Amino acid sequence: MLGDRWRILVLREAFYGVRRYGEMVRNLGIARNVLASRLKTLVDDGLLERRRYRKDPDWYEYVLTDAGRDLYGAIVAVLHWADVHVPSGGEQLRLRHRPCGKHTHAEVVCAACGKPLDPREVQIEPAEHTAMARGGS
Amino acid sequence: MLGDRWRILVLREAFYGVRRYGEMVRNLGIARNVLASRLKTLVDDGLLERRRYRKDPDWYEYVLTDAGRDLYGAIVAVLHWADVHVPSGGEQLRLRHRPCGKHTHAEVVCAACGKPLDPREVQIEPAEHTAMARGGS
Repeated sequence: MLGDRWRILVLREAFYGVRRYGEMVRNLGIARNVLASRLKTLVDDGLLERRRYRKDPDWYEYVLTDAGRDLYGAIVAVLHWADVHVPSGGEQLRLRHRPCGKHTHAEVVCAACGKPLDPREVQIEPAEHTAMARGGS
Repeated sequence: MLGDRWRILVLREAFYGVRRYGEMVRNLGIARNVLASRLKTLVDDGLLERRRYRKDPDWYEYVLTDAGRDLYGAIVAVLHWADVHVPSGGEQLRLRHRPCGKHTHAEVVCAACGKPLDPREVQIEPAEHTAMARGGS
């Protein structure tokens, strides 16, 4: 669901609140045919919704669906990992969390207790309807 | 850094604590040549370390590096998203967080205040040494 780099960058534009084709072209320096194809796959995958905002001629904008918006956390977690562990390849993003006013980065925590998740402390339990689940011991 | 499905599954074995080739083959039902190539790329990318644990003949095991372990949070965040939004494709994992004893899933929060991160509430600020950063407004 993450896909190639352009796909992630287009999705990131949506996270920034950018909805329009021309603005994405300007911001990303992306070729129009590449942008069109990535927008189409993001719509097909249910992450963006294509909405007409002007008639005759018809103009469209691209808005995050709930599924797209929910993907934000996972993506910023991946980007933070890249910032820390891929010094040359990761982009240096500086995020400010408006509600608390502080600089921030993503932290992945247990939804129950709020402590960071460490693979050595997480047990996998069997789930129904899947051949891949593993019994915890 | 996530790569294809086999790559993620091999990495997940490492998160489960599995270190040995034969056990991965049994758990995943993966072809030996596919497993060997995915292990090699995971080692090349610095996510796993290949360690000899027996001499003559030499036997090796694969252990998570710090970078590999740090990727755990991002991956469980992605998997949780898939569980919620891709009902047919996502694997149903049931995780128990040993320190608190509760069933859990990944939640991505602000490292500063602990509240969930929502793209509408995060401002991007310019950072040095990158052409991709965006000025917040």
